[in-house]
Amino acid sequence: MGQKLSYDDSKIYEFTPDLEAALTVESGDSVTIETADSLEGAVMDDDDVLEEVPEEVNAATGPIAVDGATPGDILAVHIDDIRLTESAGRVVTLGGFGLLDGHEEIEAPRSRMTPIEDGALEFGGCEVPVDPVIGTIGVATREDEPGYTTLVPHDHGGNLDTTDITTGTTVYFPVNQPGGMLAMGDCKAAMADGEMCGTGAEIATEIDVTLEVIEAPAVDISRPLLETADAWKTVASAETLEEACEIANWDLIDLLVAEHEFDETEAYMFSSLVGGLEISQVVDPLVTVRNAMPKAYLSSPF
Amino acid sequence: MGQKLSYDDSKIYEFTPDLEAALTVESGDSVTIETADSLEGAVMDDDDVLEEVPEEVNAATGPIAVDGATPGDILAVHIDDIRLTESAGRVVTLGGFGLLDGHEEIEAPRSRMTPIEDGALEFGGCEVPVDPVIGTIGVATREDEPGYTTLVPHDHGGNLDTTDITTGTTVYFPVNQPGGMLAMGDCKAAMADGEMCGTGAEIATEIDVTLEVIEAPAVDISRPLLETADAWKTVASAETLEEACEIANWDLIDLLVAEHEFDETEAYMFSSLVGGLEISQVVDPLVTVRNAMPKAYLSSPF
Repeated sequence: MGQKLSYDDSKIYEFTPDLEAALTVESGDSVTIETADSLEGAVMDDDDVLEEVPEEVNAATGPIAVDGATPGDILAVHIDDIRLTESAGRVVTLGGFGLLDGHEEIEAPRSRMTPIEDGALEFGGCEVPVDPVIGTIGVATREDEPGYTTLVPHDHGGNLDTTDITTGTTVYFPVNQPGGMLAMGDCKAAMADGEMCGTGAEIATEIDVTLEVIEAPAVDISRPLLETADAWKTVASAETLEEACEIANWDLIDLLVAEHEFDETEAYMFSSLVGGLEISQVVDPLVTVRNAMPKAYLSSPF
Repeated sequence: MGQKLSYDDSKIYEFTPDLEAALTVESGDSVTIETADSLEGAVMDDDDVLEEVPEEVNAATGPIAVDGATPGDILAVHIDDIRLTESAGRVVTLGGFGLLDGHEEIEAPRSRMTPIEDGALEFGGCEVPVDPVIGTIGVATREDEPGYTTLVPHDHGGNLDTTDITTGTTVYFPVNQPGGMLAMGDCKAAMADGEMCGTGAEIATEIDVTLEVIEAPAVDISRPLLETADAWKTVASAETLEEACEIANWDLIDLLVAEHEFDETEAYMFSSLVGGLEISQVVDPLVTVRNAMPKAYLSSPF
């Protein structure tokens, strides 16, 4: 307990198969992780604009090895708390990025600081409750995979930009490499599902997590899986939203088949009645979708 | 008051510019509309399977003209109640339809009746609370548009398959033709966001709506707009989810600009912080997405 990893100690810009641990902990340990904002202080004022996506972006603090985590295990990351460590976030547009990129009505680059006071951020006279999101969180990739920069979401996690990745949620990752090698950063003080302009209110944080290795899980997962207060959510990233929907739906079908006396077709039908598809983000190099199922119909698969 | 239109009286399978009214009401009137299930009784048993999507499907009861509704006005449809009029719904797969169409693990055609008792439907031992959805609801199309069958969602509404179109919601449509010419059907006892297998639990209903013409609205809308208990949601249908996201986001930006002292870029940034993109359905000939904004940040645009 009391272990802490700061952004200055170790950060990565790529999730690869061969990450080296900056910190090693035991299963069951809690760790505090300090993260910079995704732009690492490049935007501290509305006048600080970015002409393009920086080559290095979304610094992920880590990697953290969990002793004994072995390929085939699952790494459970319980998000205990996310504390903002700046008094303002920033929202930016920049050329070549964002859902409405290239439309003449949208000015890019532009930056907007969002001051935060009493648990709310201010934007154009509107007060928005702070609801932190960890944008980038992932583990070392599989041996047969390339590395993915921290701008990309994929099966190892990475730039998932998913609002459910917040305090109280547990994120389950496949362990691809010994130790798992967890890293995270790119937090937002608030973010909409979709992250349309390309950012939320990007901000530095301290995150408390408890890490747990699940050995010989009853069900294998190929991608991140979320457990929120009331639902299980599969998470899939792909070239198109349609493809991501297909993958997220299959992953949910597999979980339903493992728990219920359903065949795949029945699970597919059931998934068409309850819970449903949700959009995480539509702006990163791959887009991300989740498929939710209330806990009333799905218990822990592990 | 007390006006009723039954499915036997009048139904349509295409929304066109030149619909003829089956019933004419005054602005402010309430009407009860009887709807058949989307397959009109073709599936009454698990053994009733469908080889393909019927040529006529999603019968929409109507059209209802609202006296005085004129192109440029908005037709507000307040959904007061949806009552199921069958004791079971049905979920089906059929070849050529559905998110996972063509995968060998998915059997198509298959049909599954979902018995309903005490406000819950039963599927494979799971009880799912009834939460009715109007799948198809729309008005006559614009003069410059073709007709759209009731299988297609577009700017006039149609097969939107949107879970928010339920009791308590108001759906706002652009009036494209004199009288508006409202029709609806294709209800589900329950449906997941996405409607992945191609149906919810399709079921016959009686729907109570109150119709209101908004003359000279302060803001024009080109597509359906939803008002739920706590949010405004733009709704857009397009060939791809990405395109639908763009349209839904633009429509929301227009509403934010009309209310706040935002330019388009500020509204875009704000939309990236609060509310967000939601999936309605991924299976119809065009797919449907919505962009939600909590009422705390958007009041009635009209």
